[in-house]
Amino acid sequence: MKYCSNCGARVTARIPSGDDRPRFVCDTCQAIHYENPNIVVGSIPELDDRILFCRRAIRPRLGKWTIPAGYLENGETLVEAAKREAFEEARAKLTELMPYALLNLTFVNQVYVIFRGRLSDHDYRPGAESSEVKLLAEHEIPWDDLAFSSIREALKRYFIDRRKGTFPLHMADIQPD
Amino acid sequence: MKYCSNCGARVTARIPSGDDRPRFVCDTCQAIHYENPNIVVGSIPELDDRILFCRRAIRPRLGKWTIPAGYLENGETLVEAAKREAFEEARAKLTELMPYALLNLTFVNQVYVIFRGRLSDHDYRPGAESSEVKLLAEHEIPWDDLAFSSIREALKRYFIDRRKGTFPLHMADIQPD
Repeated sequence: MKYCSNCGARVTARIPSGDDRPRFVCDTCQAIHYENPNIVVGSIPELDDRILFCRRAIRPRLGKWTIPAGYLENGETLVEAAKREAFEEARAKLTELMPYALLNLTFVNQVYVIFRGRLSDHDYRPGAESSEVKLLAEHEIPWDDLAFSSIREALKRYFIDRRKGTFPLHMADIQPD
Repeated sequence: MKYCSNCGARVTARIPSGDDRPRFVCDTCQAIHYENPNIVVGSIPELDDRILFCRRAIRPRLGKWTIPAGYLENGETLVEAAKREAFEEARAKLTELMPYALLNLTFVNQVYVIFRGRLSDHDYRPGAESSEVKLLAEHEIPWDDLAFSSIREALKRYFIDRRKGTFPLHMADIQPD
């Protein structure tokens, strides 16, 4: 941030009175501009012991595989975002969503909220951001070609839990690749 | 948002190519400014069957009661934020934090992540944002003087769960007061 989004003047980074960390502050109109983490909402879409994966048609991680996930939008609930992303990326419809993992990605200022969800049928196909969409069994997953460490960590826990037959909520701090 | 935080020119609200909702876009430097929900992290601090409440010394809801909660900061995990807020607002130290509720507040573009946590001792006192800090039993809670509907909804579920002796993760959509 270089300019004040409220009045267009130059901002400076300094600790406002009563605060304990630097913020972008406008000395012209006095606005304080806070920057906070974003929420990424994803889902593990299940059908017949397989999981729906998307191959990314966009940057970053073009050509890598992932599960449907994206930023929570204003005015939207977490479940609505998980369903929207599954539809946008794989034209897939999800039901029975259950929270599965809360992941801290402090190195990019993101929190991932990952759901398990039931894919309602075999009617899926690539959306605009995917080049390919596939139902994969555990042994078919391209672990070395997954797009994000957050997704890999969630899926590792998922398959361990599936063998145990229980899916507790996970909380984890994810490191960069 | 009226001005581009990158170059200082006027922004306009329009749907960027490839997108499906209006964003603030700069026609001078082409920057797209996304606005997304914020995460509020709170805790239910438990000690001897009682809960630690803070009376707000700041706006909004000055003089109303709440549990420690505030915005997740960049570079911080959810647990770190819950501990920091308990310390800032009540000089309290929390241990054994467990995720308890995920609340959608779409009307203010917030997601609350609420933990249960154990207050480590009786060493607590008002921080800068509180005028009073008290351990309250269920029958002492000022239900009509709580600061936020999100906190009231989380606490209602908490006391029902406590009677059952089990604390599943809750997900709920909160309505404005």
